[in-house]
Amino acid sequence: MRRTLAEAHRSGLIVPEGLIAHGRGEAFDYFLGERTTPSARRAERTAAEWLFSARRPVVSVNGNVAALAAAEVARIARALPRVGVEVNLFHRTPARVRQVARALREAGVREVLGVRASVRIPRLPSDRAWVDRRGLYRADVCLVPLEDGDRAAALRARGQTVISVDLNPLSRTSQTADLPIVDEVVRALGHIAGDLERLAAARRTIRRRPFDARAALAEALRTIDRRLMQAARGRPRKSRPRS
Amino acid sequence: MRRTLAEAHRSGLIVPEGLIAHGRGEAFDYFLGERTTPSARRAERTAAEWLFSARRPVVSVNGNVAALAAAEVARIARALPRVGVEVNLFHRTPARVRQVARALREAGVREVLGVRASVRIPRLPSDRAWVDRRGLYRADVCLVPLEDGDRAAALRARGQTVISVDLNPLSRTSQTADLPIVDEVVRALGHIAGDLERLAAARRTIRRRPFDARAALAEALRTIDRRLMQAARGRPRKSRPRS
Repeated sequence: MRRTLAEAHRSGLIVPEGLIAHGRGEAFDYFLGERTTPSARRAERTAAEWLFSARRPVVSVNGNVAALAAAEVARIARALPRVGVEVNLFHRTPARVRQVARALREAGVREVLGVRASVRIPRLPSDRAWVDRRGLYRADVCLVPLEDGDRAAALRARGQTVISVDLNPLSRTSQTADLPIVDEVVRALGHIAGDLERLAAARRTIRRRPFDARAALAEALRTIDRRLMQAARGRPRKSRPRS
Repeated sequence: MRRTLAEAHRSGLIVPEGLIAHGRGEAFDYFLGERTTPSARRAERTAAEWLFSARRPVVSVNGNVAALAAAEVARIARALPRVGVEVNLFHRTPARVRQVARALREAGVREVLGVRASVRIPRLPSDRAWVDRRGLYRADVCLVPLEDGDRAAALRARGQTVISVDLNPLSRTSQTADLPIVDEVVRALGHIAGDLERLAAARRTIRRRPFDARAALAEALRTIDRRLMQAARGRPRKSRPRS
């Protein structure tokens, strides 16, 4: 994964800040055991149901998501053809927008929104406010992996339902989302894609279950706490200089 | 610090992997309160004593260390003139070796080892095995900030004493080191430099105290856990799709 990101960075798809942000996520994944917890898996299943029953679902894609999980995004788009796939960059330049769009198309996404973003989310400064009128602007359910906290809050303030994927249960994005998924993005989007495929095959009506965001975040923190305390237990080991 | 690293990255001093590693460190530092814990401070004092009483101490410097803490390395070299300062790169190219050496010299380090590394640490694959015959190869006490786990283990397997600086108490480097310092590299090297200055001024014999590495790591894990759990306290909140 690190090699993929380093290459994506050399090609311009990812900015230095994206690499640093990935590192921060790695630290939390370390604490979580580098696998999907049962609580995160439940969140992913609920996310699939919310997306499946949405009228205008949109998944938002930044450089890191495109570099790591373009295939999973394409799988989601195949399983749920009405989902909008929108390029969404914090550090927005026309060249990077084109690169993210190209990565998505190469992975099999037919239509990519956000390439010519034309409207702004109100009350959100800087270029990250630009969205696509046919996409995030009018979406009812927004899946925003690796999202910036201000954007997540701005979408939610507009009455849109926000599903986040963020390894930090304490980040403002996780704390803001209606449905925070605390899991690594490739695992999370892969699971959601699989769940959507099953829902599409079953062809039955979905009951949109409520989700206890606070309980899910508390569960992630308990997992981290448990693992840290397990690691802290251990036998004393005395060292001295051996020279 | 992020800006310094991004610039160092643009100049070629730091590779993308270095930015990711920095991000990991940031997350750990956040949970440690972005300051030196009492336990880390004790480790730093012991590190200074071990270095001061070593016959052939060496401090190893990679791109991230050169970008962030070249001044602190130079201060260590001034306080302890017999310490070897060696360029030590995981992603080794002649150009990057020269850049790290230049950053060190500009900060005031007189002699930089490892520019023409000529011997390899046995049983360690890839270019990271190259070391300087006058430096890490024959060092008795090695101060290895931001070190790779395999290298730390290889040095230790050769009977060399390893002092690490790594914000992740669970990393293989921290778990392997004789004396793991769980602190941010600029703070840690600054403290060690100050301690060495005091030891040099006192001109007395140093008793090399043993160090309980496991207890220090457990203490760091408990600090991280305590702060996470403090941050986590909050009220329950039910969400449902609002579309």
